[in-house]
Formats: sequence, structure tokens, C-alpha cells
Amino acid sequence: MLEKTITAITPLDQKAMAAAQDRQAQLTKPTGALGRLETLSVQIAGITGRIDPPLTERVVIVAAGDHGVTAEGISAYPSAVTPQMVLNFLNGGAAINVLARQAGARVVVLDVGVAADLPDHPDLIKAKVAPGTNNFTKGPAMTRNQAIQAIEAGMTAVTREAEQGLHLVGTGDMGIGNTTPSSAICAVLTGAGIAEVTGHGTGIDDAAWQNKVMVIQRALDKNQPDPQDPLDVLAKVGGFEIGAIAGIILGAAANRIPVLVDGFISTAGALIAAALAPLSRDYMIAAHRSVEPGHKIMQQHLNLDPIFHLDLRLGEGTGAALAMPVVVAATVTLNEMATFSEAAVSGRL
Amino acid sequence: MLEKTITAITPLDQKAMAAAQDRQAQLTKPTGALGRLETLSVQIAGITGRIDPPLTERVVIVAAGDHGVTAEGISAYPSAVTPQMVLNFLNGGAAINVLARQAGARVVVLDVGVAADLPDHPDLIKAKVAPGTNNFTKGPAMTRNQAIQAIEAGMTAVTREAEQGLHLVGTGDMGIGNTTPSSAICAVLTGAGIAEVTGHGTGIDDAAWQNKVMVIQRALDKNQPDPQDPLDVLAKVGGFEIGAIAGIILGAAANRIPVLVDGFISTAGALIAAALAPLSRDYMIAAHRSVEPGHKIMQQHLNLDPIFHLDLRLGEGTGAALAMPVVVAATVTLNEMATFSEAAVSGRL
Repeated sequence: MLEKTITAITPLDQKAMAAAQDRQAQLTKPTGALGRLETLSVQIAGITGRIDPPLTERVVIVAAGDHGVTAEGISAYPSAVTPQMVLNFLNGGAAINVLARQAGARVVVLDVGVAADLPDHPDLIKAKVAPGTNNFTKGPAMTRNQAIQAIEAGMTAVTREAEQGLHLVGTGDMGIGNTTPSSAICAVLTGAGIAEVTGHGTGIDDAAWQNKVMVIQRALDKNQPDPQDPLDVLAKVGGFEIGAIAGIILGAAANRIPVLVDGFISTAGALIAAALAPLSRDYMIAAHRSVEPGHKIMQQHLNLDPIFHLDLRLGEGTGAALAMPVVVAATVTLNEMATFSEAAVSGRL
Repeated sequence: MLEKTITAITPLDQKAMAAAQDRQAQLTKPTGALGRLETLSVQIAGITGRIDPPLTERVVIVAAGDHGVTAEGISAYPSAVTPQMVLNFLNGGAAINVLARQAGARVVVLDVGVAADLPDHPDLIKAKVAPGTNNFTKGPAMTRNQAIQAIEAGMTAVTREAEQGLHLVGTGDMGIGNTTPSSAICAVLTGAGIAEVTGHGTGIDDAAWQNKVMVIQRALDKNQPDPQDPLDVLAKVGGFEIGAIAGIILGAAANRIPVLVDGFISTAGALIAAALAPLSRDYMIAAHRSVEPGHKIMQQHLNLDPIFHLDLRLGEGTGAALAMPVVVAATVTLNEMATFSEAAVSGRL
């Protein structure tokens, strides 16, 4: 499925993009005056193949998994919070629920690696690869087959939504400890230094931060992930939910659905996706710039310019949900504004 | 009315702000993880005096006026576009109409100085001070009394909305040539150099930009506006719609209504408002950072951190409308998220 999905990802539709650009130039505003809204409208036209795609069916898929590396004391919160927050998502009480409601989006939780049994629930997809990754300071986080399994779980989830008429998807994550594998992936795939791409996550102090940097260094020394082989990187120092997010992005691209990439963890998934299928990058929209220092490095590596700079650092897909109305606004202004001739407005002097 | 409104502006409600801050700390997320959404929710509590204000009644007030200084060739578009665009607003075809609809806001147009007769329309407030300002390279743009009249027209417009239950207001502008007075106001009130705060507006070329800088220099030399007297600055090198925007901001503050300040022209109005009533600054929310170079200088002078960096340069209140869902999201997350105890989620290690 992985190979097939990657092959299904094709370049953006240049004809639709030219049509969007042409219409932007006729609308009652100075050319370019809507800035990023204009470029977004052109990108969405290229993704969907039309200038006026419906964007009403919206989903945030929150991939969840646990991390063996939490044994090294790299998080401010206990791993028990992962399943507790999944239940919070299913009960509608988390930030992502509130923000998705505001954005007219459903929340779907994808369990690819939570270290707890979770109840059946209509909004929960059970696709557990294993109950948490291995502690990657001792050896690989997962096998290569498990990495593929996690990616394919994300692909399956988004493809199922696509079959039901999905127009716009956001990625989200839940997994105590998951800034650590995200920083590791960032260091390997962008070549940046570990200290440069490691932050304070949910709120560790400086001593814990120094330990976190050393933990990542030990993990890279032990596992020697191959920067030319994204599956090797994901397997050795990644996480199941990060793999699933890569799969959501690749699956969205294969289905020509715009995908809002949330924060630091989601962008780690985006790095894996772009390394597996470079064309997938054109289907990504960066929702926001997190306070995690590695996020900027990741986004620059992917050449993604985020919509928001709001100092968010929550994950869950919260930035993606918050950005959905902006993406919708981009396409709606393109289609609903009057042209100079329709409105009898004079052009330039 | 001006004096009375300024006196009615009082500090933010510290008790409501403390209550909002306290609740933020109990919600199921690491403290501070929602970044600017958290500080916005606290500011809105301080403005409204409650942590759960309704924010459903939303209006963007677009102040419109013409500028005698267009005779100096400082704009890429003819002044005829001002009334043409007002008609476009009233017909629902402009970017602000589309974005306000998306944001669940009404658009009200406030004519304080359009150089044309406009038809009666339920969404148009007729409060013309004069049909355009005077060319301020030859003398003052308007009299001091006209400056007060423009400000009071903005106050009256927002107070009328407040009486009808307004919860959230955005400022907007229309007026061909109005980046020129905005740059002049910025230079006088922030002390920055003219070339530093002058941009390409709707799209003039470099030769026209050099002329624009010289026009502003001549206007300041001729009129000698007093930086300590904001009414003098507005009268000598301002615009009617800029005065009206200052009035909208002051009126919103007096009525304890959060006000989203749009782009470069609206922020020129905010500079006047803050100079007249420093407490009004606490009621302002900066919607976005325009590509006009003076906008950053204005926002830094006001200590306002914009929600968006989207390279917008359209005005009309488009950035304010686009930011409304973010402001709503800030208050809604504060109120609708579950607390750690409600959701049985573990705290920090």
C-alpha cells in the first residue's frame, strides 16, 4: 500500500492554478493585496483541480501513541496522560474538540500505539501497532515493518474519509514524550544540531532539557539512522503516531485533498512524508509556527510558510483546526468576490 | 462627546483577568500551551469584565473618505475608486463582504468624507464631514473641528451598535490615497523617518514611491504638526476615515467592547486613539501585520502583537474579519475545555 500510495501522488494541476491566478487578477482589489490568501487559493486549486472546490467536509485526525523513551525522564508528564487525553478527545473536552467545533470539523482519533486498552467509540480507529515504542536509547524504537504499518494506518484512515467525501484534513498528535523522537527525526533529516532542534516540550526545566539532548544523542549514536532512508529514521528514532501522520499526509496527497500540518510532531511526520514522496510537499499547508525551536528548521527545510505565529505548543491538531477557516477564506474570496467589470470599479491609473 | 468618551475609558478588569488566568491553569493542557490564545482570552475577560462573554454579535465598520493629496500622484488608482468600492461593499462583492460573511459579521460602511453623493442604503451611515480632505501639501487636510467631527462620527457609529448588543468590532477603511496620510501620522507620532514608514500602497512603482516620500516631507514642512497634540496631527496630515477609526476604537473602549484593529490605515487611527486616551490601547487587538513597512513600527510603538502575518495589504477591515474566529476561539477554548479534574487527567510529574 505504501508504494502504491506514493506512486499515486502526482504534481499539482497547473491548469487549475493558472485559472485561479487569472481570476485573482480580475477581482476588485489591487493584484496581490490578499497576500497569502491568494497563494493559498492557487495551491488549493492545484491540489483539487478546480478553483471552486467545496471545503465543507473537514476532519482532524489525531494520531496517538506512547514512547518507550519516556523511561529516560524526557517529559514533564507521565505516560498515563496519553490514554487519559484520548478519552478526553472522545468525550469532547480537549482543546482540539473545542477548536474543531469552531472550525466545523470532526475529530477522529487514530490509536496506533497507546500503551493502554481503549474503549470502543465511533470516533476512535483502533489500529494499534504495539503498546508504545521501545526505548530508542537501547535499540530501534520499532521494526521497519512496524514503521510501514504505522504509515499505512494513517493512509487507511484518510482514504476511508476521502471515500466518504472529505474535502480538507488536519493532522494532530497525542503521545507523551513525542517531542523527543520529533527532535531526533529533525536532526537526522535536516542535518541540524540536536541542541538546536530540541525544546522544552510540555514544560521541562533546563536540567531536564540537557538530559533530553543527551538522550537524543545517545539514541542517534546507538541506532545510526540513515538520513537517506526515511523508513529507517522512523523505525529507529520515531514514533507510531509520527508514522501515522506521515501516512495521513501521503494519503491526502494521493487523494488530492489539502492537508493542514499542525505543529512540531506533525511536521516531523511531514519530514518523513516529504522524504518518501517529495511531491507530497505541495499538498501540505503549514498551520502555525510552534515555540519548539526545531519547528522553524523543519518548516524551512520543507519550504513551508506557516499561517499563524501564535506561540502554540499543544499539538492535538489545534493549530490545524484554527487554520481551517483561513484556508476556507482563501478559496471563498477567490470565488465570491466581484470582478472589476462586474462591480464597475476603475482599474489602475 | 470626545472628552466624555475619553473619560469613560477605564482600565481592564483585573479581577476578571485573574479569573481567566486561573481557569487557563486548570484546563487539560500544559500551562501556556495555547500561547496567544490564552493571553487573548485574558485580555477579553479584562475588557468585558467576564471570562465567558458572548461574542456572537460582530460588526466590521468600514470608514470611507477621500484625500486631496491624490492630486500629487501618490496612488496607483483614481479617487473615483473610493465611491465605486463603497457601492461594491453595499452590494456585497468586496473582499470584506466575503470575509465578514465567513466570520459571521455584518459590514457597516461609514461615509465621513467620500467625494461623491452616495445612495441611501441600510448598511451605509451618512456622516460626511466634507467631500474629501484638502491637499495637505498646501495647508491642513482639515480643520481641528472637522477632525473632532470625524472622530465623533466613529464614536457614534460604534455606540449605536453597542446599544443594539454588539460584542466584537473590527475596524476597516476605504479611501484612495490613504496610505499617504497614514505614513505621515506614523512619522509624526512615532518619530520614525518618512522613507522608513512609507510603502508602495496599492502598488506604485519606485519613482512614484520617491515622489510619495517627498510629498509627505513637504506636507510636514508646510504644516508642522505638533506630535504632542494628536488632534493637530489628524487635522493637518490625516484623513476623515482615519479620524473615524480613532473614534471607533475610543467608542469601543468606552463601551468595553474588544476592537480588532485591521491594517496600516486602521493602525494610524489607533495611534491617534492611543495618543488621545492611552488606556484605549488595552482594548485593541492587532489583526495582522501588513506589508506596508510602517505597520510594524506603528504596532511596536503601540506594543501590539498581530495575530496574522499573511502579507495582506488591502484594508477594508479584511484582516480584522479574518481574525475574528481566532478571537472567538480564544474565549471559547477558555470556557468549553475540560479541566484536569473534570477529565481525570494526571498533572505534571
